[in-house]
Amino acid sequence: MIITKPTLLLDLQKCRKNIYKMVAKAKKNDLIFRPHFKTHQSIQIGEIFRKAGVDKITVSSIGMAQYFADAGWEDITIAFPFNILEISEFEELAEKIDLNVLISSKASAEKLITLTNRKLNYFIEVDAGYHRSGLDAENLEQIENTISIFRNKHIFKGFLTHSGNTYQARSKEEILKIHKDTSTKMKALKDKFIDQYPNIIISTGDTPSCTLANDFDGIDEIRPGNFVFFDLMQYNLGVCKFDEIAVCAACPVVDINPARNQIVIYGGGVHFSKEYLLNNGNKNFGEVVNLTSSGWQRSEKLSWLTSLSQEHGIIQASDELMNKIAIGDIVGIIPVHSCMTANLMGSYKTFDDNSLDHK
Amino acid sequence: MIITKPTLLLDLQKCRKNIYKMVAKAKKNDLIFRPHFKTHQSIQIGEIFRKAGVDKITVSSIGMAQYFADAGWEDITIAFPFNILEISEFEELAEKIDLNVLISSKASAEKLITLTNRKLNYFIEVDAGYHRSGLDAENLEQIENTISIFRNKHIFKGFLTHSGNTYQARSKEEILKIHKDTSTKMKALKDKFIDQYPNIIISTGDTPSCTLANDFDGIDEIRPGNFVFFDLMQYNLGVCKFDEIAVCAACPVVDINPARNQIVIYGGGVHFSKEYLLNNGNKNFGEVVNLTSSGWQRSEKLSWLTSLSQEHGIIQASDELMNKIAIGDIVGIIPVHSCMTANLMGSYKTFDDNSLDHK
Repeated sequence: MIITKPTLLLDLQKCRKNIYKMVAKAKKNDLIFRPHFKTHQSIQIGEIFRKAGVDKITVSSIGMAQYFADAGWEDITIAFPFNILEISEFEELAEKIDLNVLISSKASAEKLITLTNRKLNYFIEVDAGYHRSGLDAENLEQIENTISIFRNKHIFKGFLTHSGNTYQARSKEEILKIHKDTSTKMKALKDKFIDQYPNIIISTGDTPSCTLANDFDGIDEIRPGNFVFFDLMQYNLGVCKFDEIAVCAACPVVDINPARNQIVIYGGGVHFSKEYLLNNGNKNFGEVVNLTSSGWQRSEKLSWLTSLSQEHGIIQASDELMNKIAIGDIVGIIPVHSCMTANLMGSYKTFDDNSLDHK
Repeated sequence: MIITKPTLLLDLQKCRKNIYKMVAKAKKNDLIFRPHFKTHQSIQIGEIFRKAGVDKITVSSIGMAQYFADAGWEDITIAFPFNILEISEFEELAEKIDLNVLISSKASAEKLITLTNRKLNYFIEVDAGYHRSGLDAENLEQIENTISIFRNKHIFKGFLTHSGNTYQARSKEEILKIHKDTSTKMKALKDKFIDQYPNIIISTGDTPSCTLANDFDGIDEIRPGNFVFFDLMQYNLGVCKFDEIAVCAACPVVDINPARNQIVIYGGGVHFSKEYLLNNGNKNFGEVVNLTSSGWQRSEKLSWLTSLSQEHGIIQASDELMNKIAIGDIVGIIPVHSCMTANLMGSYKTFDDNSLDHK
């Protein structure tokens, strides 16, 4: 495999393992598994899910839904507050496949009812504590009013939430507490509305909760996405093992500064995004690993990306790394946030030298 | 103009004004003007520069050099430490156009001398205080040794530096002090080597210095890039007026939360990147402006993007904005870092409804 510029390496074995593990977990807990495809955005990686028996997916934009519909996916939830400005793109796609949309407010439902005659399958987006979007899980009146706008016209599929607040948690216990709180609130909602709407389901599913939790009481469907690759953020949260991270950026070394123990790589903000973790107050944009012909290995002495500009990355290197590195070498960097890095890199390379697409 | 999803608007009039102002400044100070095209990465915006008399440009990768060479640019400096792994791409392109490269270390020169027989036009990259890459401006011995490796084989064009430390400055005075220090160091280098290499030049050029400075003593060439658009970061640094910022992201409103004075937009980390400024300790990923049919206007009461996930943006809104906003509206967001936002958005829309490309 020849690498001459920043390239996102995919360890297919780890990726497959992550997928099959989550498929098994969903099955064991009798959950509908509707993985979020926004992390990988790849038709070929989607095929691994399909082989594992998955036939329902989640995406976060109408464009992404179109992309996967073209690849043969026929049951897609767009887990993003309905963007009424894309109503015609939505109508066109809903002709072809089963499309579920999110209603996140009464105002949105009121607008939408006047805009289309096509029957919608919709979830009510509920805010169970993340406070990003959706109707407050405890404001039953508002939820009831919103559903009633669509009564007889559209098909109410259930309640959906995303507990993104698990990403800010500081321990596994805190993640499990958020998961428990969310499950309790969602279950209460279902109990309240099930007589009136006997087919509704509860859909949740951030990667931290789905990976760590073993109790899914009250939940019918999960939609994790990031678990397909994991990343340094998930590892730091205690959600995955380092060896479960399935992507690694390969970047050429272009300059070395022995006086500062720094290595300059071709790989910057346009490859990694600018998300970082804090290591004892120091910014960490990615961790350096040793690349091998079939994968990568963690170093005993840590080196990490401390600074990014548009195309430059600066590694603060261990003595061990400084002693062996040379200009023209390729270093591996485990990204902080794999969704953002994959989006910027635009494709994947596997260790059998195949290129996989990214939307 | 119909906007249905996140779109980067370009105010052509402001952009042209920024370009002509910098062209005039370079002319007045008898400087070679070699603008950095990494900010806009657009063939059509490049044509505005060409009409203003520009025929030399700067880019930051061999891919970007190929892109602009295909559009007819024949004198390009790749202002990035030479990536020896792309030697064959370099050789192919150097057949067609005048290409200048950067030598940032002795080790890089030693590798390169064995790799190609093609005559290179090279600059020595000097670190004048930014401490990202390049040879220490005061380490004359190392600089001399590096140049001597190439003696008789390649063409020494001069010394090049990027004072990216101006981006961390806290006042105009501090920017001007960095500019002055850099100029002094670079001038000393030229004085030292000019007898031996009578044709060498000094090339500098970050946007803050080039915009604010009036004294370019010791400098022969400038390479600013960001000034073509400016952004919130440059405004905050005191480098540009708010009305000189030439790009603005237009994003659909998809949810509104009156209890928290928050607006959810379709526009997230995959559109803006995740760079932020701090407003009294609060993260600011972009400032909300009022869009009109021909441009945008700053609001008296500030509202800004306080949080981004992959596709969601959360605006912390003023009462004024809350009172008038509705789902399906389009809001304007002035980006924190225009280079990163333009790279993610992938194209521009002008107010006469034309689409401009981005590499």
